[in-house]
Amino acid sequence: MAHKITLENIDHLAVGSSFLGTGGGGDPYLGSIMCREAISKYGPVSVISVDEIKDDDNVFIAAAIGAPTVMIEKLFSIEDQHRAVDALERFLGRKASAIISAEIGGCNSMMPVAYAAMRGLPIVDGDGMGRAFPALQMTSFNIAGVACAPMTIADEHGNIVLYQTVTGLKAEELARPVVAAMGASVCMSCYPMTGEEARRSSIPKTLSGAIQIGEAISRSGDRRHALERLVAALRAHEYYSQAGVVFQGKITELERDTSRGWVFGTCTISALNSESKAVLKFQNENLRVEVDGRLQCVVPDLVTIVDAETAHAVPTERLAYGQRVAVVVCSAPPQLTSPRALEVVGPKCFALDDEYVPVGALMERHQS
Amino acid sequence: MAHKITLENIDHLAVGSSFLGTGGGGDPYLGSIMCREAISKYGPVSVISVDEIKDDDNVFIAAAIGAPTVMIEKLFSIEDQHRAVDALERFLGRKASAIISAEIGGCNSMMPVAYAAMRGLPIVDGDGMGRAFPALQMTSFNIAGVACAPMTIADEHGNIVLYQTVTGLKAEELARPVVAAMGASVCMSCYPMTGEEARRSSIPKTLSGAIQIGEAISRSGDRRHALERLVAALRAHEYYSQAGVVFQGKITELERDTSRGWVFGTCTISALNSESKAVLKFQNENLRVEVDGRLQCVVPDLVTIVDAETAHAVPTERLAYGQRVAVVVCSAPPQLTSPRALEVVGPKCFALDDEYVPVGALMERHQS
Repeated sequence: MAHKITLENIDHLAVGSSFLGTGGGGDPYLGSIMCREAISKYGPVSVISVDEIKDDDNVFIAAAIGAPTVMIEKLFSIEDQHRAVDALERFLGRKASAIISAEIGGCNSMMPVAYAAMRGLPIVDGDGMGRAFPALQMTSFNIAGVACAPMTIADEHGNIVLYQTVTGLKAEELARPVVAAMGASVCMSCYPMTGEEARRSSIPKTLSGAIQIGEAISRSGDRRHALERLVAALRAHEYYSQAGVVFQGKITELERDTSRGWVFGTCTISALNSESKAVLKFQNENLRVEVDGRLQCVVPDLVTIVDAETAHAVPTERLAYGQRVAVVVCSAPPQLTSPRALEVVGPKCFALDDEYVPVGALMERHQS
Repeated sequence: MAHKITLENIDHLAVGSSFLGTGGGGDPYLGSIMCREAISKYGPVSVISVDEIKDDDNVFIAAAIGAPTVMIEKLFSIEDQHRAVDALERFLGRKASAIISAEIGGCNSMMPVAYAAMRGLPIVDGDGMGRAFPALQMTSFNIAGVACAPMTIADEHGNIVLYQTVTGLKAEELARPVVAAMGASVCMSCYPMTGEEARRSSIPKTLSGAIQIGEAISRSGDRRHALERLVAALRAHEYYSQAGVVFQGKITELERDTSRGWVFGTCTISALNSESKAVLKFQNENLRVEVDGRLQCVVPDLVTIVDAETAHAVPTERLAYGQRVAVVVCSAPPQLTSPRALEVVGPKCFALDDEYVPVGALMERHQS
């Protein structure tokens, strides 16, 4: 990819990361405005590949934490983000030399770019999820044995909370109520990494991947249908390449249950010209899809509902009865599908009964 | 007072701090066991007066935070306490040279003594409440402008949360849900002070006061009734001297409502030989008492229900129908009754409609 992220990349990153958000991860739109402002003010952001991270680099995460539905009303700023990173730097006694996204899917793709611009630091072409997940411990960093803590959370009033927890799961458990008490939309930094740790635990090429996906969806002058362009872009990527459209139709049933800080639910899509039906389950993010009772894709592989015309992702909170949509699935990065990884991000972690079967194998099975 | 706290003082401190807990503050019994063990192992604890604190001293707080009803089942240890203080020392880059109690009333009178023994540090004859209060911002430290944060909380698993909040009230707000998620019985350190700050913001002579009160209640060989001895000890103290027994009788009505992490309630005591009734209101601690509709004492002045025979304090959770009790009131330290102090610990802070009138004035008013 380009060695810089410029104003031209921002919309593509927003559209692509929205796809990788698989229904969750929050709306990147407001973050994209923040990015534009930061790049206009501080200039383009240098991008380094995961391979280019040096041993003595200090790689810090910039991220928002909270409820996506609140984030679009209670804004946070780059200054809040700085307080979180700065507190972690002071605690550790070392300064960031590069910024990385914890979660390329959804709005957490944006703040790291804006923040790297402000700090004049490079951003890593990679992240810790390769998609979006609802909890702090669900990262490739954690899977590779990097500690989530020390971790900081900062609100817009200048309050900072620093966690030194024994596990990432405990950080999640102790952070969530503080985030709620701070108003459910705040900034954080966690998984501070040495260069060696970042190189071994990050999922490479997901920032460039998101931009490529967004660019493919948005490209005008290409006579192919947006959905075809999307699938072609996924297939061209190193990780998302087992990809396809498993269903098209209109939304005919929708159940949502907002509880324990998440949105749980089911979405049924009916074919326009047959009795065929697709059923998706979600917990913020889409978790699984079956078509006429046959599993097509299950977490950590990616399931995204996109608009049938524009191929733009439709987040969980914007699903509506009657919408014409397509269900696009693709393979997760291999860092998320090892036996150790599946203990952290596999179907069991979302209370699903499914055994994980790679989406590539499921597609072959249904074709045979 | 003696220059050392020895094994002989521990029971008296437990009995006296239970009185100063005014119905709340938690049971000092388990803490007294911890104190005995620590003093047996590490030796007696040196006591310094507030006046003796030097400018370059670093005065740290050792305290438990949580629900008193949980604390008697989910124990914490001196090691948990050390993790909390140690994290704060490392964050600030300075070591404690003296330990002080944040709250002399109830169980938080005990851990500071045990912890000072372990560290081989002196304990200050003073505290931040002169009694017990239910929230972190309700201290003479805060009233005098000392910041509650940075503040640390540590659980028994090695998890530590550090707060850098803008106000003490916010520390309370952000700490409470973490304490609940940690199991509602953990250790903390807050209000780290320079010697100058501690000297100017502490309430002096409350540790020795608690021991004197406990000793008076427990003294055998003194032919006076325990209740008389208690009142005499209060009257002999610099701060608690406006003291008296405002009612005796048996408990005939009791309402408790456990909600939002506190126990709210009302206790009615009926005279044995007349129609006279006393009505107390409490929120963990006793807040006010009226007799036949006339206010006798209101927070921050102290109201404690004691056993009519032994004069031992009866905590809110042990009040029971039919108990023979006396209601003892006494004046609060002057640090709690200034106009600024009443904004932090006055009747309004507990949603009471009363204007604060000093208990001494109320006693005179009813006599005239």
